[in-house]
Amino acid sequence: MSRHSPAGFFSNRTITELADQLRAGETSAVELTRAALHAIEQFDSELNAFVTVDREGAVQAAEKADAELAEGQDRGPLHGIPVAVKDIIEVAGLPTTMGSAHFADHVSTSDAECVHRLRAGGAVLVGKTTTHEFAFGPTGDSAHNGPSRNPHDPTRITGGSSGGSGAAVAAGMVPLALGTDTGGSVRIPAALCGVVGFKPAYGAIPTGGVFPLSQSLDHVGVLARTPQDCRTGYRVLAGLRDAPSRERGDIANIGWIDPNSLHPTDPEVTRIARAALETSGIPVQDLGIRDPEVVHRGFLGIQYSEAYANHAERVADNPELFTDDVLGRLRESARTAGWQHVRALAARDRWRSDVDELLSGVDLLAMPTTCVVATEIDRREITVDGADVNVRGALIGLTKPWNLAGSPAVSILAGAIGGLPVGLQLIGRPGAEDVLLAAATRISG
Amino acid sequence: MSRHSPAGFFSNRTITELADQLRAGETSAVELTRAALHAIEQFDSELNAFVTVDREGAVQAAEKADAELAEGQDRGPLHGIPVAVKDIIEVAGLPTTMGSAHFADHVSTSDAECVHRLRAGGAVLVGKTTTHEFAFGPTGDSAHNGPSRNPHDPTRITGGSSGGSGAAVAAGMVPLALGTDTGGSVRIPAALCGVVGFKPAYGAIPTGGVFPLSQSLDHVGVLARTPQDCRTGYRVLAGLRDAPSRERGDIANIGWIDPNSLHPTDPEVTRIARAALETSGIPVQDLGIRDPEVVHRGFLGIQYSEAYANHAERVADNPELFTDDVLGRLRESARTAGWQHVRALAARDRWRSDVDELLSGVDLLAMPTTCVVATEIDRREITVDGADVNVRGALIGLTKPWNLAGSPAVSILAGAIGGLPVGLQLIGRPGAEDVLLAAATRISG
Repeated sequence: MSRHSPAGFFSNRTITELADQLRAGETSAVELTRAALHAIEQFDSELNAFVTVDREGAVQAAEKADAELAEGQDRGPLHGIPVAVKDIIEVAGLPTTMGSAHFADHVSTSDAECVHRLRAGGAVLVGKTTTHEFAFGPTGDSAHNGPSRNPHDPTRITGGSSGGSGAAVAAGMVPLALGTDTGGSVRIPAALCGVVGFKPAYGAIPTGGVFPLSQSLDHVGVLARTPQDCRTGYRVLAGLRDAPSRERGDIANIGWIDPNSLHPTDPEVTRIARAALETSGIPVQDLGIRDPEVVHRGFLGIQYSEAYANHAERVADNPELFTDDVLGRLRESARTAGWQHVRALAARDRWRSDVDELLSGVDLLAMPTTCVVATEIDRREITVDGADVNVRGALIGLTKPWNLAGSPAVSILAGAIGGLPVGLQLIGRPGAEDVLLAAATRISG
Repeated sequence: MSRHSPAGFFSNRTITELADQLRAGETSAVELTRAALHAIEQFDSELNAFVTVDREGAVQAAEKADAELAEGQDRGPLHGIPVAVKDIIEVAGLPTTMGSAHFADHVSTSDAECVHRLRAGGAVLVGKTTTHEFAFGPTGDSAHNGPSRNPHDPTRITGGSSGGSGAAVAAGMVPLALGTDTGGSVRIPAALCGVVGFKPAYGAIPTGGVFPLSQSLDHVGVLARTPQDCRTGYRVLAGLRDAPSRERGDIANIGWIDPNSLHPTDPEVTRIARAALETSGIPVQDLGIRDPEVVHRGFLGIQYSEAYANHAERVADNPELFTDDVLGRLRESARTAGWQHVRALAARDRWRSDVDELLSGVDLLAMPTTCVVATEIDRREITVDGADVNVRGALIGLTKPWNLAGSPAVSILAGAIGGLPVGLQLIGRPGAEDVLLAAATRISG
């Protein structure tokens, strides 16, 4: 977006193009991997997208990928493609810090299931990307290895928690990165960094070997430059390689949800997102959220209860090893009562019915991805449309509903405000991920 | 059991016998109903088994049942049989107090689904039975209408929470009564009053119209004199009338679980229960509980969280309307944290695997129903086998595991200590209720 953004090798190449060039002998996995490593060298001292770069392992994997292709062994669309993996996902032989001092010395002994699928699909893992500590924060600026920085303005956040993955794709260091999304952690950095971020339906990509934040809300997702590239990555991760979809995005209409019905939103963000949607020519229908409190209560009650269940012993034994940001949130989480968790689970069920109803008359739903563009690093309060709100709420207010519902959702680039990207979010039905991504391609134009 | 126990009309008649007599013209529904009302008049001023007796409605329903049978309309095995219903189950037109001052003036406007099925099956509803307030207590001695009293010794508890149903069947006031069982509330009064109490698998009988205590653990069940009579009631309530089972209790072996692995148990109770089992001649195999803490944590975390979610506004607005017993338990419930509820749900899943494993080599499991015989009314502490424990724990310690697992379970009469009944509990597999009840019949011998 902004004129001075870092532009690595992958800034203007799609995975589909690279795959064709690999098979035509116009490039090699080793060449692509060296291009990725070069871009990381060029830009990462400023952006801090990576915690760990595995130069040696990546080149070896690339050599193997080239040898396989030469022998006629084609592992599919990710064969020989450099990929980055969020640092809460286990990759055998590499450190997995979870963005936390608690795991500063942790080296993974096995691959997460999603990483296993990437490798089986021939992808070349170049390194691990910066995550908000334990993925518990949407700003991406609170991690043991420091904040990831927005390629469009390094004084600003990438968004999180998959912030390193967002910066790595946005700066053209890799064409594809893995993220996780519990309240928006794939879609938010995608929106703030100006790339595409996609989470399929809950459970579509296995979470084994991914450090849990909130098991009922955690999704594995992907960040890439285009919806089509996200689709390529998603299908490998979801084990759908051999079953091309017949559904192809004949979208009759899209329901627009007023973002202010969920959270105060910058009117300029709303205008840009809506305009991007309308440019597609797809008929848009205005919809409202009947009871937004159901979303807030359901999401917080579940996320807080599950997050603290995952961290209670660490908080009790070694609180000093947490960042203040995450420790504060965990202490707040501990105060959620069991009966509130019970009501949160009931609220989730009600919200899922509401979403079914919202989707009963339209093919997709749309709204901005975030309520604001990227804020300054470490900023925690902000004024939006005259309301004083916390940055966290302004970032996850429009994404978290779709974690609670388990709906597939994608963020695409809608435009920019002062050089800072604005995301448009599209939400679909579980199982109809291809329809959603086809529409995203059409709207991306 | 004890020589001086009240013995109403139904003390020595099974439902099967009564059904035959009805169809042979040897008795009538009106005659059976008047016998029930007479026994209630005789004994209930002492036992307090009933909150509400619907003399007029019962006689009318009986007249209708007789007219139908005369016209050849036979509604099945409960046609014309008097039945009592626990007072947390809605019966249209009658008060449903939930055993609480909060609902002292509440008159139900519709039938619970289980009551609807009873009526559709031709049963004659004679009244509502005493329940521990909101079914939240296994003693049965804390209710707006006072404690129900044990027919074997009116200074002692019936057990609860379906205490009135236990006393009503034990005293021969009705041949069948409905109860609910969240941690043992059908099986405990059955054991302490010397009758049979059966809860089928979780969900087998619908809970619509039953005031919830803890939705994940609540079961509707039945109390009667014999396992066969429980089976008759259960099949009507579960909507299984027209599908007689082919499974008929070819029990190869039974696993005995040492009750002390779950809770300190009176050795004499254990001896009597085990002896009753062995008299049947079925081979018995000794089994142990691997991690009883999983049961305790899982059960309490879920029950407390759900119970408080059902009562939070009442505790906040009108605490004075609760009995001290239940208010104290609710205040304790409120202190369960959300993360503990999350871990309780995980513990439940582990326990269910453990139960599958326990049942992998045997057809049924067996153990005493309670750790002690009926205690004095209002007593809250007791010494069992040298350990000081609370009465609540000694009553539910052996029954609650099967609510957490959702397993079908039945309590039958094993013997007595000083005139006070001892229960033997048998536990089966969901869906194999008929196997369980056939074995219960064989062991009751």
